[in-house]
Amino acid sequence: MTSEPELIRLIRGIARHPAARGLADDAAVWEIGGERLVLTHDSMVESVHFLPGDPAEDVAWKLVATNMSDLAAKGARPLACLMAYGMGGDAEWDRAFVAGLGDALDHYGAALLGGDSFAQPDGNARCLGLTAIGKSSVPVPPSRSGAQPGDILYVTGAIGNGWAGLQLLRQDRTEPASLIAAYRRPRALIAEGVALAQIAHAMMDVSDGLLLDAARMAAASGLGLEIALDRIPLSPDFCAVFGTSRQARLDAATGGDDYQLLFAAHPDALLPVDAHPVGRFAAGNGLSLTDHGEAVPLPENTGWLHHPAASGAG
Amino acid sequence: MTSEPELIRLIRGIARHPAARGLADDAAVWEIGGERLVLTHDSMVESVHFLPGDPAEDVAWKLVATNMSDLAAKGARPLACLMAYGMGGDAEWDRAFVAGLGDALDHYGAALLGGDSFAQPDGNARCLGLTAIGKSSVPVPPSRSGAQPGDILYVTGAIGNGWAGLQLLRQDRTEPASLIAAYRRPRALIAEGVALAQIAHAMMDVSDGLLLDAARMAAASGLGLEIALDRIPLSPDFCAVFGTSRQARLDAATGGDDYQLLFAAHPDALLPVDAHPVGRFAAGNGLSLTDHGEAVPLPENTGWLHHPAASGAG
Repeated sequence: MTSEPELIRLIRGIARHPAARGLADDAAVWEIGGERLVLTHDSMVESVHFLPGDPAEDVAWKLVATNMSDLAAKGARPLACLMAYGMGGDAEWDRAFVAGLGDALDHYGAALLGGDSFAQPDGNARCLGLTAIGKSSVPVPPSRSGAQPGDILYVTGAIGNGWAGLQLLRQDRTEPASLIAAYRRPRALIAEGVALAQIAHAMMDVSDGLLLDAARMAAASGLGLEIALDRIPLSPDFCAVFGTSRQARLDAATGGDDYQLLFAAHPDALLPVDAHPVGRFAAGNGLSLTDHGEAVPLPENTGWLHHPAASGAG
Repeated sequence: MTSEPELIRLIRGIARHPAARGLADDAAVWEIGGERLVLTHDSMVESVHFLPGDPAEDVAWKLVATNMSDLAAKGARPLACLMAYGMGGDAEWDRAFVAGLGDALDHYGAALLGGDSFAQPDGNARCLGLTAIGKSSVPVPPSRSGAQPGDILYVTGAIGNGWAGLQLLRQDRTEPASLIAAYRRPRALIAEGVALAQIAHAMMDVSDGLLLDAARMAAASGLGLEIALDRIPLSPDFCAVFGTSRQARLDAATGGDDYQLLFAAHPDALLPVDAHPVGRFAAGNGLSLTDHGEAVPLPENTGWLHHPAASGAG
């Protein structure tokens, strides 16, 4: 089997246009006419990116929100999208999906311009995709590679809620509602992304796990990065269910499906939105981890490598 | 099960932006930044849109060509695309696919800007998608709905070769090569589309079957249409294998996967490319068929309704 990184390397070889940003970013940045468009495509497959029992409205919401989150990470405002819809043969599901899609598109102000629906062989997992197109709010949208030595790594909010929601759903639990909602109905931080694009040296969304995504930012920037596990913000509901042990923090930091924004900024930068400092970039390479000042070995898996965003261009 | 037309009706309800053209066209036409972009997304699923035994290079080629054909149908020149790649777990296949993708993108001059790759559950059919973006060559790209009473319906070339190739492959035959190639490596008629956009009142590509697609153009234009079965051009290889009987012509006219351009033009229009007159629009509604002047009943299936292009926005 081709590893996903090997596949990305192959595809990168044919994606030579500068707008592709070497497929090493959340989205493409394309100057066309007098506009600077930001483009992304993320797919969601049943049993891989959502649970067969997830409500169709929520699946539609998540399909939109995860793509909007890639736009947010580049400081772009949503404009339009095209959808790929693999039909699963369930009329109620289709109706609920389209209703949820309409709600999500209205919420984010994105127009549905087109796409296609298609039959799938019987028994196939539903396969859904969305191309999202936004408009950059800054002349040069922050890439993953712009972090500077001495920069602080910030995250916009609590980490681990999406992972927590998935664990609960796998145990047939439906509470706390905030954690279930974090998994099924994540929010893309559009306004925050637009504001942060003004000051961030590098930015991305946390989709595959904070440690994995942060390590990617450090590698793209040619820097080392130290993250303080004890500084990673957790929500009250997360702590109530999973506690605050080192393992709980590691689970939160590697679980993915967060859609918080992760950004590098100068230590003196005035932050336009609330954000939590969780690490610091320095010359060198590699990710290191501390917990209350004590060095902690990196977990073997720092995130979820099969997530679409792992393509580097998702 | 939701019928596909019902699903499209639901989705149409949330695609209210004028660029979506009511999801009743091959592609969206979007004015942005002083440009007039044409956008489409078509998916291809193994065993639905291609055969499990089709060479990966050819599957990649077809994914690109079928999307480029939607651009051609609007008189657009290709600019860029984003890809969704469901990994099937076969390294050789992945490599061959990416090589074929590079060739096809180079051929059509489309830059790969991004996309994603994703895992699929074991045993799932491969699911591939492409969003293609082009630039319109005319102020108002021809829609499907602009045919006028008295207009001639033309098609740019031989019909039925793709269908014929599929029949041969299903019988494990690999000759004539031209028919196999028509199925596996269709050509998008970009230059022809750009030229025809200057004179066509309505235009689309033939992806689901000439009769079905022509009936859609007539319905969208609020007109009736009479097609002369004996005027539909067939290739020498098609005739050598399948003959020229009425049934063979009906098979050609309903098989789909043609990617010829179908357009309506004034009877006195000077055609900028070779094309074959196959029908005539008139006030009224519905499609009627003749063969050497004799009325012929419409076949029950006029085309392939499960093809992605059947979405009306493919």
